[in-house]
Amino acid sequence: MTNSMNVDKYYVGVDLGGTKILCGVFTSELEFIGKAKKTTKPERGYTVVKERIVRCIREAVDECDLELKHIRAIGIGSPGSIDEDKGSVIFAANLNWTNAPLREDIQKRMKIPVFVENDCTVCTLGIYERELKCEPVSMVGIYLGTGIGGGLIIDRKVFSGFNNTAGEIGHMIIDVGGPRCTCGNKGCFEALASRTAIYNKLREAMNAGQETVLEELTSADLKKMKSGDLKKAIKQGDRLVETVVAEVAEYTGIAVANVINLLNPEAVVLGGGLIEALSESMMEIIEKTAREYAFSGAGKGVKILPSRLGDNAGIVGAAVFARNRAG
Amino acid sequence: MTNSMNVDKYYVGVDLGGTKILCGVFTSELEFIGKAKKTTKPERGYTVVKERIVRCIREAVDECDLELKHIRAIGIGSPGSIDEDKGSVIFAANLNWTNAPLREDIQKRMKIPVFVENDCTVCTLGIYERELKCEPVSMVGIYLGTGIGGGLIIDRKVFSGFNNTAGEIGHMIIDVGGPRCTCGNKGCFEALASRTAIYNKLREAMNAGQETVLEELTSADLKKMKSGDLKKAIKQGDRLVETVVAEVAEYTGIAVANVINLLNPEAVVLGGGLIEALSESMMEIIEKTAREYAFSGAGKGVKILPSRLGDNAGIVGAAVFARNRAG
Repeated sequence: MTNSMNVDKYYVGVDLGGTKILCGVFTSELEFIGKAKKTTKPERGYTVVKERIVRCIREAVDECDLELKHIRAIGIGSPGSIDEDKGSVIFAANLNWTNAPLREDIQKRMKIPVFVENDCTVCTLGIYERELKCEPVSMVGIYLGTGIGGGLIIDRKVFSGFNNTAGEIGHMIIDVGGPRCTCGNKGCFEALASRTAIYNKLREAMNAGQETVLEELTSADLKKMKSGDLKKAIKQGDRLVETVVAEVAEYTGIAVANVINLLNPEAVVLGGGLIEALSESMMEIIEKTAREYAFSGAGKGVKILPSRLGDNAGIVGAAVFARNRAG
Repeated sequence: MTNSMNVDKYYVGVDLGGTKILCGVFTSELEFIGKAKKTTKPERGYTVVKERIVRCIREAVDECDLELKHIRAIGIGSPGSIDEDKGSVIFAANLNWTNAPLREDIQKRMKIPVFVENDCTVCTLGIYERELKCEPVSMVGIYLGTGIGGGLIIDRKVFSGFNNTAGEIGHMIIDVGGPRCTCGNKGCFEALASRTAIYNKLREAMNAGQETVLEELTSADLKKMKSGDLKKAIKQGDRLVETVVAEVAEYTGIAVANVINLLNPEAVVLGGGLIEALSESMMEIIEKTAREYAFSGAGKGVKILPSRLGDNAGIVGAAVFARNRAG
């Protein structure tokens, strides 16, 4: 009987990205059981993506030998700005969505409570609760991938700010007049230290005649470059990639120092695809630079560390979010 | 009898600066009654400054036809990093103090409870409670003077961070490799937009042969330049000063945008001597630049405004702090 009382106590965490959808299934204690993955295909439009999310959830649940009736709630971490009350995506550039009623639509299809939050906020929540065990009073998460995002924990709670956009660290200007960012401004952290920034720097160096094994690793299509390819290139002794990655780590260290000076959190956690693949090459430089640029006294004892959750941070966080909201 | 029950319900707020000490006396409802002012003379050492604070408090109280026995508590806003529990100044560069037991010493002399906090934190508290009437849920204060400081209100409370240094916005890097800051780093906000930065820019322009009425206004000693002199110069049509002040306002707008992107507060309030004197020339540029650089959605509805408390923000905030702590 004890078991049957808990049948509806599983949670699904969905990490909705511009490239892929990842769905994880978790117990009521948030232990991971299994997951499923699907490409997002945003070019096919909202209705198709929504159905792909539904299918991915079903597959993950089935993969774990469970049925939908066992699922207490679904959490979705979505890119863009989110209206958490409505569970809608106000705007997400990489999905090309405006006012997408995601919660309503998924809930209608699944008959399970759905909760939607910003992907970086959800990642931060996951790292905070599952990885740091809620120990720091305050924490900032910084995620380096195609773009750069962030999330804030203040007084042990997610801090979302006035327009629910707090943590947009990718668009912090750290080099006035620097390289152009996708947002239109110049010198944003994202334009200096994302995977896109690395691509641009490599492209420029290659145009200037420098060589890299990445040409071979990406079959001469540098656009397909993944964070793992950068790691392989460095392992193979590629000096160009090593230099560019070191530069990016330095900019990241400066951004971490800015966060420490302004917010003085107890911990700064770095995550995202770039950190997952390259933490060995980057973390030492990030920490050294951050401590150098942090104002005297501000950085003392502040933890600067890479997340160990890697690619799972999104699904873990979304599951934590679902459990916190659904109870 | 009602009156005699309230005899000990006045508060003194002390604004301790590198140049001057300002003491204000306030009623239990924090209405301003009167103040006194003294030069700080930090070059004479801690013991002398401490006595000057004591004398300044006595003069302010006497000025208001009160006696020390009417004072319920004294709040002191001090530069530097503060150990609020001990009421000591851990380190203050412009006073040349290390581990100064300010609360203990002033309390011993005055026989009145003393509370010490960072000057920017105290200013932020004063602006938040007295000027904004505690309306915004979150607020960031940015103070432009000889240096640049800041303070944070999150969830209607002062947020001090892990090392009690939150709000050190002056040392946020916004121009990597930019001009050298007093902290040793390059490209700090303070090195780009403080009165010291303005002085350096003017000096450089003058060395390059440009002319300014400031030479006359400061009797050829530009080092003596005050924020009010800059205002006078602009009123007299000084193009060089106008250009430099506009540049500084632009950098300030970028810093405000960084704060909006990272923290997304409900209000950003600007204060300090530079803003008090030059808000007419600066605020429009600051707001325009901030809205331009703030990420879409993040800046919507966020108030960006100058403090009306001016030079009194420090004493008002210190009195609010004393009342909040002493009850």
